[in-house]
Amino acid sequence: MDGGFVRAALTDAYQVTMAYGHWKHGRAEEKSAFEVTFRTGPFGGPFAVFAGSEDFLEFVGKFAFNDDDLAFLMKSYPEMELGFFDWLRNVDTSKVVIRSVKEGTVVFPMEPLVTVEGPLAVVQLLETALLNLTNFASLVCTNALRHRIVAGPSATLVEFGLRRAQGPDGAMTASFYSYAGGVDATSNVLASELYGIPLRGTHSHSYVQSYSGEDLAKVNGNIKTPNGESRSLLASTLEHRRRLGWTETNQGELAAFLSYAQAFPTGFLALVDTYNTLGSGVLNFIMVGMALMDAGYTPVGVRLDSGDLAELSILVREKWKSVAAEDPRYEKLASCTIMASDNINEESLLEMNERHHEINSFGIGTNLVTCQAQPALGLVFKLVEINDRPRMKICSGKSTLPCKKSIIRMYNSSTSRVLDLIVLCDQPLPRLGKESTFYSPTDQGV
Amino acid sequence: MDGGFVRAALTDAYQVTMAYGHWKHGRAEEKSAFEVTFRTGPFGGPFAVFAGSEDFLEFVGKFAFNDDDLAFLMKSYPEMELGFFDWLRNVDTSKVVIRSVKEGTVVFPMEPLVTVEGPLAVVQLLETALLNLTNFASLVCTNALRHRIVAGPSATLVEFGLRRAQGPDGAMTASFYSYAGGVDATSNVLASELYGIPLRGTHSHSYVQSYSGEDLAKVNGNIKTPNGESRSLLASTLEHRRRLGWTETNQGELAAFLSYAQAFPTGFLALVDTYNTLGSGVLNFIMVGMALMDAGYTPVGVRLDSGDLAELSILVREKWKSVAAEDPRYEKLASCTIMASDNINEESLLEMNERHHEINSFGIGTNLVTCQAQPALGLVFKLVEINDRPRMKICSGKSTLPCKKSIIRMYNSSTSRVLDLIVLCDQPLPRLGKESTFYSPTDQGV
Repeated sequence: MDGGFVRAALTDAYQVTMAYGHWKHGRAEEKSAFEVTFRTGPFGGPFAVFAGSEDFLEFVGKFAFNDDDLAFLMKSYPEMELGFFDWLRNVDTSKVVIRSVKEGTVVFPMEPLVTVEGPLAVVQLLETALLNLTNFASLVCTNALRHRIVAGPSATLVEFGLRRAQGPDGAMTASFYSYAGGVDATSNVLASELYGIPLRGTHSHSYVQSYSGEDLAKVNGNIKTPNGESRSLLASTLEHRRRLGWTETNQGELAAFLSYAQAFPTGFLALVDTYNTLGSGVLNFIMVGMALMDAGYTPVGVRLDSGDLAELSILVREKWKSVAAEDPRYEKLASCTIMASDNINEESLLEMNERHHEINSFGIGTNLVTCQAQPALGLVFKLVEINDRPRMKICSGKSTLPCKKSIIRMYNSSTSRVLDLIVLCDQPLPRLGKESTFYSPTDQGV
Repeated sequence: MDGGFVRAALTDAYQVTMAYGHWKHGRAEEKSAFEVTFRTGPFGGPFAVFAGSEDFLEFVGKFAFNDDDLAFLMKSYPEMELGFFDWLRNVDTSKVVIRSVKEGTVVFPMEPLVTVEGPLAVVQLLETALLNLTNFASLVCTNALRHRIVAGPSATLVEFGLRRAQGPDGAMTASFYSYAGGVDATSNVLASELYGIPLRGTHSHSYVQSYSGEDLAKVNGNIKTPNGESRSLLASTLEHRRRLGWTETNQGELAAFLSYAQAFPTGFLALVDTYNTLGSGVLNFIMVGMALMDAGYTPVGVRLDSGDLAELSILVREKWKSVAAEDPRYEKLASCTIMASDNINEESLLEMNERHHEINSFGIGTNLVTCQAQPALGLVFKLVEINDRPRMKICSGKSTLPCKKSIIRMYNSSTSRVLDLIVLCDQPLPRLGKESTFYSPTDQGV
């Protein structure tokens, strides 16, 4: 993603020592073919979404060792002949041919996702960056899609992971590929600024905590209505408070909500669990929300960030509905948004679905960006041919399929996918109406 | 780590909306104090190693929104008053005071690791980057130390995670803080080049696979001995092969080992599991190793990358010892290095320890850099005082300790740590010989 570290030296040392070995034996330019694949689907599921190919192609296009890299390598490997560094200085990717499944394709274990053909030592030098740029991108894209599938098409999903990701670039990559995988928005300002992802965010507990009860009288609650009239949110809120008898709610929290609603009359989404979700936060939201509605605005809703989220969402919705039923002026309360954001993951989404939660929007942080359920995809890069002859590895549990291969994706008449076939690149295609026999690539210990 | 993304806009949207709320109510400059802490030790253990503070301090020192950021925010928040963007344009951190435990300190749950004091809205804008830059750094540093503790002081640990990390910067951060946490070296060329971490790496399976049996005769096995004499590694190896009767080993693998040994006569560490670890790889290593010893060099050893690593290491060591015992010219074989690198983690290290493995060096990738066992530390940033008055959050399971605090680390006479006390900043210190009462911060649901 970031240009800074994506350069030829972003590689494993053994790529350089192997390149030297090949160069020294006159084999650096031998014709080779490598394939990218993965052995098992991530997160216990059958599929992955392949991503990162655009970053990788950009890397390949500008691949070159700079003077600093060469000086560093010469110092690190005094035993290497100087001719190798001349070769390394002039190495380019003009003879490399890359075939790849399209960015964002749903793919399956053992399938050839990318085939890289070219001079043996050059292709070897591309391996590590290729894997670095596609492994995490594909993983987080897959993770986002899985969260989307479980949350359903109508839920709004917001990626909240910036503070928990693997550093700044890890976070930016996660924001980008979460959006690609099916999330609606991010909390990450820079990701929104640079990648055009919709931006979301309201306030944290500290905003609520920064207000004390005595601040309530000091909140300047004047807003302009959509028609341009002046109106006091504070007076209106206190009037509702008296009328409803909800005088025991936390006053600092009420002051904070008023202050936020005044600053964002069209974007009032209140975090309600700082002190007591049902006993204070939700009631304070309703009172300020009514004041906003009195002034002609519609409050957005609440965010739940602790406790039993499904249960709380049901109770909040019931409360809103009963208040709305009592007074038709406030009927919009019933359909306000409930957002939830405490350690959301696939499992908790499934569990909340079963309990018929009333949540409209999920903020997903740690589990989305660190891919907590499986933090690495395990894409590998394997030699499949050299000088047009097939190669394979046959060690225990990690064997590879030899030869350059491609995928045939078969559809039935209704265009839904039926079957993927892994075939040799030069193999005749199966023909309609003619019987063909195929084998599972994962059978027989392969 | 990288400069590119570490800038003021690397923040959550709600920091900006909260700053606006505070600014609009004249509270942006209120005196506030926030603390960084974590609720439970990572990886099921009691401690963490705090890291990332230097990156964060650098960020604070140059904190400023640039014109692009301001233009983006103005477009994103048309409801905000223009005066706020003037404030944002001029915001700086000159009034912010930061106290932190030292980089690399072992710390415990609920302890105040960093205290940030300053104008409320400014400190709020620093939160996300602070957490982003310290969360993963501390986690991976802790993870590396835990691996070091389990592997013991004499094992060589090499970080192999570049291809599985969260993108390029995630990998660079992981390499840097793995080294800080107790790993000896990295495979990451760029991390070695930029951070001075020792570099390690030899060859992969593809190097072995790139050779066929027919290549054996073609390997130009001539090397110079340390004394400058010419010598044929090939002839010497084939002589050992005949003598030992090991004629069934894979010839392509033997050719690859010869080629690698010729390129790196002082750095011959062979990956032995491409075809059959005990039936081919180890025997080929011994034959080429003997040829190297004939020429006056000492082979380094082997790397095991699949199968039962502890069992294989014991069998390899036995084989080496028996060969060395039969012929004193090759006694150095017995003490060659056995490296292992297949999905190593704390658990597998413990299990191998119990089985008295013979491994000298571990290559640790995925589990080290993604922190697979727990991919997020959960450092949080909590408001503890505003205008010198204590603040706390009391929601279920996530309550905070109010007031500015510091840590007193108590030692006994032998300088080993006995106890950490969390105290208020202005609290008198406990005195020697005088009884004091303290409470556990995690008792009573706090």
